[in-house]
Amino acid sequence: MKPVIEVCLSPLLFPLFEKKGKVIVVIDILRATSTICTAIQNGALGVIPVEHLEECLALQGENIIKAAERNGKVADGFTFGNSPFEYSEEVIAGKFLALTTTNGTRSLRLSEGADQILVGSFLNLSAIINRLKILNQDTILFCAGWKDQFNLEDTLFAGAVIHELQGFFNDNNDPAYMAKRLYTQASGDLLEAVRHSSHYQRLAGHGVLKDIDYCLQFNQTDIVPILDQKSKIIIR
Amino acid sequence: MKPVIEVCLSPLLFPLFEKKGKVIVVIDILRATSTICTAIQNGALGVIPVEHLEECLALQGENIIKAAERNGKVADGFTFGNSPFEYSEEVIAGKFLALTTTNGTRSLRLSEGADQILVGSFLNLSAIINRLKILNQDTILFCAGWKDQFNLEDTLFAGAVIHELQGFFNDNNDPAYMAKRLYTQASGDLLEAVRHSSHYQRLAGHGVLKDIDYCLQFNQTDIVPILDQKSKIIIR
Repeated sequence: MKPVIEVCLSPLLFPLFEKKGKVIVVIDILRATSTICTAIQNGALGVIPVEHLEECLALQGENIIKAAERNGKVADGFTFGNSPFEYSEEVIAGKFLALTTTNGTRSLRLSEGADQILVGSFLNLSAIINRLKILNQDTILFCAGWKDQFNLEDTLFAGAVIHELQGFFNDNNDPAYMAKRLYTQASGDLLEAVRHSSHYQRLAGHGVLKDIDYCLQFNQTDIVPILDQKSKIIIR
Repeated sequence: MKPVIEVCLSPLLFPLFEKKGKVIVVIDILRATSTICTAIQNGALGVIPVEHLEECLALQGENIIKAAERNGKVADGFTFGNSPFEYSEEVIAGKFLALTTTNGTRSLRLSEGADQILVGSFLNLSAIINRLKILNQDTILFCAGWKDQFNLEDTLFAGAVIHELQGFFNDNNDPAYMAKRLYTQASGDLLEAVRHSSHYQRLAGHGVLKDIDYCLQFNQTDIVPILDQKSKIIIR
């Protein structure tokens, strides 16, 4: 029997899913999981997902870059935020990134207890797909959404994964079908679809359209960041 | 400024919405809201939405038909269930229908406190659209879903409403965009899309495919059932 692939459309819906024994792919396309993939690709030793601002500030260590985003902007009291462009090799190689964001880090925390927790973005789509094929295990695609609301860009990514995995998984559930249809229809021009998303409009207002262009690129890296549940650090 | 139309994809997400001052359309296509529309159209004096089975059994009154559905079937201890075919004019005219269902009645209850609570289904789609145009007020399309999960058929109906109201409302939010896209793509063959829904497969297993065909018919009635919040009864 094929393993089952499901989509969780919001952290509020996550309690409906059994996470034990499952593979979870955490998705926060704009921008947490795209930024995590970028930082790891550029040589970060690991990314430490942190839920609260104070917790992040309190972290001790010379080689830790502390970064925080709230409501799409760098949080007060921080220099670094949630833009993938902040984490070039020069900045992040050989360092840890402690990151707290509005949505993404919370979903990572909620996923704890799953068998495997992977970090997915368009930047590492093929790598995620290959890994899921190899793991061949029941999988939850966990969309971080925006403040617990359904969002377009995370669902589009879930749809892309399901589309690419057709025949390998049982995707016979309503959110998976919807996500796949949405992606199939939008795949010709992803940016055009994402332009309708409320988060696009939010980020556009903050002048970070180049971040969005970047985050919608396919297969820029073949790494699969994974949350090590003992150390609570995301590593490659 | 145009009023805003939003879509709530699951009762679990409903707390994210402000219901005060809003019009809410409760949607449970398979089958609660389709059955309510049918019963009212066929002369029911009103539908009493009830949350619990015991509460339903305990109702007193000679002209009350007590009906209960759980998991797609007539609940134990009841003769009447959630099929629109049970409520012909001969059966329901001049009577009240006390109805408790797995999903629909709960969403009606959660909606209490809104400005207006309407009952929507494909059977009264045009009537709902006309009413929303006249009310011209911020609106939430509330998908009852299946046991708090996103479902396809309710979302398709929300998409149909948004599609038909284009230009009249501000539908600039992610769930509305998704629902509209999903509907636009599926509208040529609604049954084909709904065939992929988990609830279709569930009901098919119970042998009620004719109910599904019935519930996917457009504009069979021009009534708009509305929940009277004082009496807690749905009337025409």
